[in-house]
Amino acid sequence: MADDRKLLLGSLLYPVFELLDLFGPLEMFGNCPQLELCTVALSAGPVKSAQGVEAVADYALDDCPPLDLLLIPGGLGSVDEISNQPLLDWIGKRVAETRVTMTVCSGSMLLAATGLLDGRPATTNKAMFNEITELTPSVEWVKKARWVDDGNIVTASGVSAGMDMALAVVAREFGQEQAELLAELTEYEWHRDPDWDPFARVHGLVD
Amino acid sequence: MADDRKLLLGSLLYPVFELLDLFGPLEMFGNCPQLELCTVALSAGPVKSAQGVEAVADYALDDCPPLDLLLIPGGLGSVDEISNQPLLDWIGKRVAETRVTMTVCSGSMLLAATGLLDGRPATTNKAMFNEITELTPSVEWVKKARWVDDGNIVTASGVSAGMDMALAVVAREFGQEQAELLAELTEYEWHRDPDWDPFARVHGLVD
Repeated sequence: MADDRKLLLGSLLYPVFELLDLFGPLEMFGNCPQLELCTVALSAGPVKSAQGVEAVADYALDDCPPLDLLLIPGGLGSVDEISNQPLLDWIGKRVAETRVTMTVCSGSMLLAATGLLDGRPATTNKAMFNEITELTPSVEWVKKARWVDDGNIVTASGVSAGMDMALAVVAREFGQEQAELLAELTEYEWHRDPDWDPFARVHGLVD
Repeated sequence: MADDRKLLLGSLLYPVFELLDLFGPLEMFGNCPQLELCTVALSAGPVKSAQGVEAVADYALDDCPPLDLLLIPGGLGSVDEISNQPLLDWIGKRVAETRVTMTVCSGSMLLAATGLLDGRPATTNKAMFNEITELTPSVEWVKKARWVDDGNIVTASGVSAGMDMALAVVAREFGQEQAELLAELTEYEWHRDPDWDPFARVHGLVD
């Protein structure tokens, strides 16, 4: 960026989101000097995760400032949210304004429900792959991928895959060296290859 | 357990805790049917992480119910908390009552400050290993370890190591099969060997 304003990364919270889908990527992004984090939900305030612990949404949907990056975690709660039209409308509007929108796990189901993934390659978690993808057959769902980078939209596989995707986005946006340093500081064994995905086989999607 | 009461795992929050230190292990523990999670801090309510996002503490220290397991994350805020005597007193009292106390990263610095690690093996993060360990030379600090299992106290290396430790504690307490299933469901490449620690070399602690 030409100016020294930090880029704003917003994370969408909803009830029964999966903890690591959200906080794995935020560990990485939150240690980038170029980024500032915020959280947004239907209403500002505490939002309960699938594991019970609550995170705080800084903004209600309509009050959220313009975002440079958007992160949509997955979780069992996403099953309810695919029929939450105000939420889907918000996602659709924000995706058009952000330079990168990212999903983790079943977060891609929410993005797919807006129609914005139609005709585009994307992935999602492998344990529920068939159940998730049959809802939106117009998406080019990829069975074996740790993450799929399709430019302004990057989708990760299940839960832990969000950390690998986050480091790949850091590398793409801010340079490989910064991503490598982050992995070292967080003592994270980064899977750098987007095609690394042993869980596609574990969950019976490929031979 | 003979009864069907869930075991209560409490996580200690303090300002400027590291997100993944906390939420990596809670992703694993929070998907164990034997466990219920709660959070505790000096005061109940929102606690700001090192990355800016807030998590909610369910209880103030004095209001926290008896815990079966205790998790102490690390983070830059731990530097301030080692001189927070009420917090250290609380940790000391609770460790004596729980079946397992776990630390991640510089969380072990807080536990060490209570004196309870004196003469016992433990580890901590590798990027700040020397700075952390010189404060408490009576601890048998282990330079190369992903985690150290010393019975009722289990200490993990930096940030991401908490997930490997958590799965090891799940395996120990609830069986290997449950830990393997958790790793598959969260698409996590679990490092099952506590001696696996390439970051000891990365950060210059071993040749």
